[in-house]
Amino acid sequence: MPILAFLFGTPLRTDEQDQQRIGALRGIPVLGLDALASAAYGPEAALTVLLAIGAGASHYIAPISAVIIVVLLAVYLSYRQTIDAYPNGGGSYTVASENLGRFPGLLAASALSLDYILNVAVAISAGVGAIVSAAPALLRYTLPLCLAILAFLTLVNLRGIRESGLVFLLPTYLFVASLGLVIIVGIARAVIARGHPAPIAPLPTPMPATVAVTGWLLMRSFASGTTAMTGVEAVSNGVPLFRPPASRTANRTLTAIIAILIALLAGIAYLCPAYGIVATAPGAAGYQSVLSQLTGAVFGHGVLYVVTMSSVVAVLCLSANTSFADFPRLGRVLALDRYLPLQFAHPGRRLVYTTGIVLLCAMAGGLLVIFDGITDRLIPLFAVGALLAFTMSQWGMVAHWRRVGGPHARRSLVLNGAGAVATSATVLVVVVTKFAEGAWITVLVIPLFMLFFLAARHSHERVDRAIAGEGTESSPLSFAGVEPPIVIVPVRRLDRVARKGLQFAISISTEVQAVLVVTDDVTADEQCARSMSASWHDLVDVPAIGAGHSPVPFVTLPSAYREFITPFLAYVRDVAAAHPDRYVAVVIPEVVERRWYDVLFASHRPAVLKAVLRARGGPRVLVVDAPWHIGDEVAGC
Amino acid sequence: MPILAFLFGTPLRTDEQDQQRIGALRGIPVLGLDALASAAYGPEAALTVLLAIGAGASHYIAPISAVIIVVLLAVYLSYRQTIDAYPNGGGSYTVASENLGRFPGLLAASALSLDYILNVAVAISAGVGAIVSAAPALLRYTLPLCLAILAFLTLVNLRGIRESGLVFLLPTYLFVASLGLVIIVGIARAVIARGHPAPIAPLPTPMPATVAVTGWLLMRSFASGTTAMTGVEAVSNGVPLFRPPASRTANRTLTAIIAILIALLAGIAYLCPAYGIVATAPGAAGYQSVLSQLTGAVFGHGVLYVVTMSSVVAVLCLSANTSFADFPRLGRVLALDRYLPLQFAHPGRRLVYTTGIVLLCAMAGGLLVIFDGITDRLIPLFAVGALLAFTMSQWGMVAHWRRVGGPHARRSLVLNGAGAVATSATVLVVVVTKFAEGAWITVLVIPLFMLFFLAARHSHERVDRAIAGEGTESSPLSFAGVEPPIVIVPVRRLDRVARKGLQFAISISTEVQAVLVVTDDVTADEQCARSMSASWHDLVDVPAIGAGHSPVPFVTLPSAYREFITPFLAYVRDVAAAHPDRYVAVVIPEVVERRWYDVLFASHRPAVLKAVLRARGGPRVLVVDAPWHIGDEVAGC
Repeated sequence: MPILAFLFGTPLRTDEQDQQRIGALRGIPVLGLDALASAAYGPEAALTVLLAIGAGASHYIAPISAVIIVVLLAVYLSYRQTIDAYPNGGGSYTVASENLGRFPGLLAASALSLDYILNVAVAISAGVGAIVSAAPALLRYTLPLCLAILAFLTLVNLRGIRESGLVFLLPTYLFVASLGLVIIVGIARAVIARGHPAPIAPLPTPMPATVAVTGWLLMRSFASGTTAMTGVEAVSNGVPLFRPPASRTANRTLTAIIAILIALLAGIAYLCPAYGIVATAPGAAGYQSVLSQLTGAVFGHGVLYVVTMSSVVAVLCLSANTSFADFPRLGRVLALDRYLPLQFAHPGRRLVYTTGIVLLCAMAGGLLVIFDGITDRLIPLFAVGALLAFTMSQWGMVAHWRRVGGPHARRSLVLNGAGAVATSATVLVVVVTKFAEGAWITVLVIPLFMLFFLAARHSHERVDRAIAGEGTESSPLSFAGVEPPIVIVPVRRLDRVARKGLQFAISISTEVQAVLVVTDDVTADEQCARSMSASWHDLVDVPAIGAGHSPVPFVTLPSAYREFITPFLAYVRDVAAAHPDRYVAVVIPEVVERRWYDVLFASHRPAVLKAVLRARGGPRVLVVDAPWHIGDEVAGC
Repeated sequence: MPILAFLFGTPLRTDEQDQQRIGALRGIPVLGLDALASAAYGPEAALTVLLAIGAGASHYIAPISAVIIVVLLAVYLSYRQTIDAYPNGGGSYTVASENLGRFPGLLAASALSLDYILNVAVAISAGVGAIVSAAPALLRYTLPLCLAILAFLTLVNLRGIRESGLVFLLPTYLFVASLGLVIIVGIARAVIARGHPAPIAPLPTPMPATVAVTGWLLMRSFASGTTAMTGVEAVSNGVPLFRPPASRTANRTLTAIIAILIALLAGIAYLCPAYGIVATAPGAAGYQSVLSQLTGAVFGHGVLYVVTMSSVVAVLCLSANTSFADFPRLGRVLALDRYLPLQFAHPGRRLVYTTGIVLLCAMAGGLLVIFDGITDRLIPLFAVGALLAFTMSQWGMVAHWRRVGGPHARRSLVLNGAGAVATSATVLVVVVTKFAEGAWITVLVIPLFMLFFLAARHSHERVDRAIAGEGTESSPLSFAGVEPPIVIVPVRRLDRVARKGLQFAISISTEVQAVLVVTDDVTADEQCARSMSASWHDLVDVPAIGAGHSPVPFVTLPSAYREFITPFLAYVRDVAAAHPDRYVAVVIPEVVERRWYDVLFASHRPAVLKAVLRARGGPRVLVVDAPWHIGDEVAGC
């Protein structure tokens, strides 16, 4: 399969798994991209809520960012405990279901699934939004661009994690370096100018204040700003990806990601009031993102501006990748617990979980198509899933340490407890303040996901119970009194396809019948078929008896309504009912087309017949598919 | 199937066919609707071309209509000959292929198919166009309205021809009666007013003349006006639909249709100059159709106006039905000649050709979706198909009479020759004058249809040759040396599904193997499966030997890439290659889900395995589908 190999890489042997593991340097792009990219939209989202209070808004970003950083630190310390306690990957689902029980676990899994899907859609549409605001000529291609990036990400992830690490290395470090430079140079300028630096590129004029500052407004701003925290859970889910000692490598990676993220958030929070930067109205003329204003104010609109903004766009688009690394892994864990079909647990050609990747691509693609690739409509749904998953995970850890006990556990319990309280309060604030804007949709969707998981498990258990029986696994099989089946072969004429079917039928049983349904059609074929009855004895029975087999009765069935399927099915069921202790095998001779376009012209009757016999033939009817390959001769037919 | 019966009616027995035949009264709506509806758009199309010559345009409609009526009469006399000569239905395809040969026949069939498809799309979109210009609030629902009407027509036709006659009776006769009344009252008023009647409802002011009258302009006007002739061929195609004597009933129906159509065209042509009616710019503000102006001028905008215009809308929408009556019948004839798959020849539950109806619905629906239900873009393609089919048919009749010879034939030859010359000239004028506007598309599509027909025939002949062999039909079958097959059963564990598969396998052969692919997966299932190997002898071999059967070897296959299909297929092919004189039967045990939603959660591996074995297993590999129905127990499993 050279095309498969070119697109997805050559298959990997199971024992090649260890070579696919990564260190901290690769871990930051692979598992931290989502968290770091949040710096590009979190502060902006908080400032956008404060638009209506005019130029004064920039003074509130520092305290709001401070609260977000405090919650972030609590979450960070919490997740360090989780990584130590769950070296095989401590996703919210694992932690919540092991420590809190089945339903809290599924609640965490549903919240996380929603978050992963939304993250893909939001990240890609935000990236494309930045591209098209730089090049308005591309505006009409928004959706195709989104879908192209989605297809690219899917492909890269189907190739496997190691290579995706390489693809994302450069943009991530370029983003960190250039934005870091903006912040360092910006702070240096501000210090030199004694706190009042002059922006190099002029800033847009803030809108006049139209409302007073209220506690509710600040809470809404904080709620929007918490989108800066999304993606932090990725490392604790992905511990087994790391080179051993996995927990230590994972903790170093998490520390690096959180340190960079906090530095970026704090830098932005310091520079906004220093330069007097506030948000501009999104979607309106003259819109400019906060990062764009900041970079312009520090660097002007030269080469450094272009490099910085390009890296922002790249990181936004690619931050969707974190979901591709984590969603299939969550799918595998759920599948092993039977909450998803087993395909999700099966590592594919390249040791990645193909089914999960494809499903994520389909769901995110569906969201992009439904919302035309426009970010604004998706943002209000976004933070709830991530924060709810954090919360379930922290409470799970609290239960974990209470159960484990001991002096070391007490310190961990305090850290996780602090995290749990902080994230619970945050999720409450976000749901309440954003309910009308769209958070209500997540309140509907998360239970639907839980229902699906429960239904999958129920279905699996029902099937398993039915086929396992009681103690059958270890009881000997029963072959006493098993007779050869009664074989029925539908025929229309004695061509080579039918001959092969009859030859096989006679080889497996002494009781073979040929059945012709007379459909009263006026085609030449049917006329011809009726004359078969006359020559049947000489052509079939005589050679069968001659070779030591039994004769083959030729049965004709009338069909008042010109249908083939109904009278044939009725006959098969009658035969099965008349022999309650026998199997009935229906041999269906069929031409297999070798060229794809021949399928256009072929008859679909055999496929329909097989499906009907399978679904409605009853428990003792089996279907034998006797394909005839054009060009591949079978001797004697 | 009560839902099927409710929607499509109870099935009809083959011997109920005669009761489905119709007389002239029902024949006019069923086969004449298309021809009669043409009166609603033909004159309008001709006048629209003359828009640019201003108020003077109305004086040219009479001579243009006269030419159209002359051609129409030639076509009518021609088709009378065809109906007499082809009492089993003289469609253009039949006449052209019997008398002119294979390619002219397929040219006629392609032209006619295109015409039928376009007629459905144009008729529905024109009807909906009239509705939405009366109720602009519905404008945004244009496409859904079109598709709803298409679905309704499809349903009615799947129920069968007799009932569709009843549905269409009322609107057709209402249309003829009300438009006839408009014309009679209009002429009476004109005579009383000595040729200068005053319109009751005021007419729109004609646009000022901007171009001079040229021969080219009049030819283009005539070409557009020929759309008034579409649909005339329907009766000659549908002769077998009529009550015996079919030819006479058909001829009476055709005469009635042509007489009504000519009366309508002539009446409109007389009244337009009398009242000074010209076309208004389509799609622009103040647009009003010619029939609407005419009815308003004669009746004013009262109840009679509403009744007349409603019947026009209804007839436009329903005129698509003629295609539904004829296209499936053409499909059947083509299928019997192997130019289409045989499904097209098979009369369904209600004695109609289901496949053709569904295909017509799909293609017309596709056109409506692509063109957003807007008539204007389709009109330029419209007349070519119909006129080309007329032409092929008339030339075919000329060849027919030349071959038949005799004094009666000479008169017929002259009539058909006149028709052939008239339609040839017309089709030439239409293609030339409308080429740039869209007739070029038909010049592309008609050969593509011909190619499809030829490909279908070629494919059928190739398959038929391959499976028929040389003289096999009448040679006795060969059963000498036919041994039971080698049977391979894939197993993962000894659940009841696998037990049933093994039981059946042992019943058909003495050489059965169970095969387990060790996929190196870490699920509990696979761990479990490996332990099977240890207990196999006690659980399977011992009872098999005890019941007088042979033991069942247990084969394990390694899979380096965690795949199931590839190593299993390779093993099956190896076994088949090692026994070139034996069949290999692969028994695939599979759980059949009884509830539709269980399919969501089920494994699709058995379906994939069956497809792969079928396509790539080679000529001696057969697949046995051993379904396990949950809840339907099989004894001993």
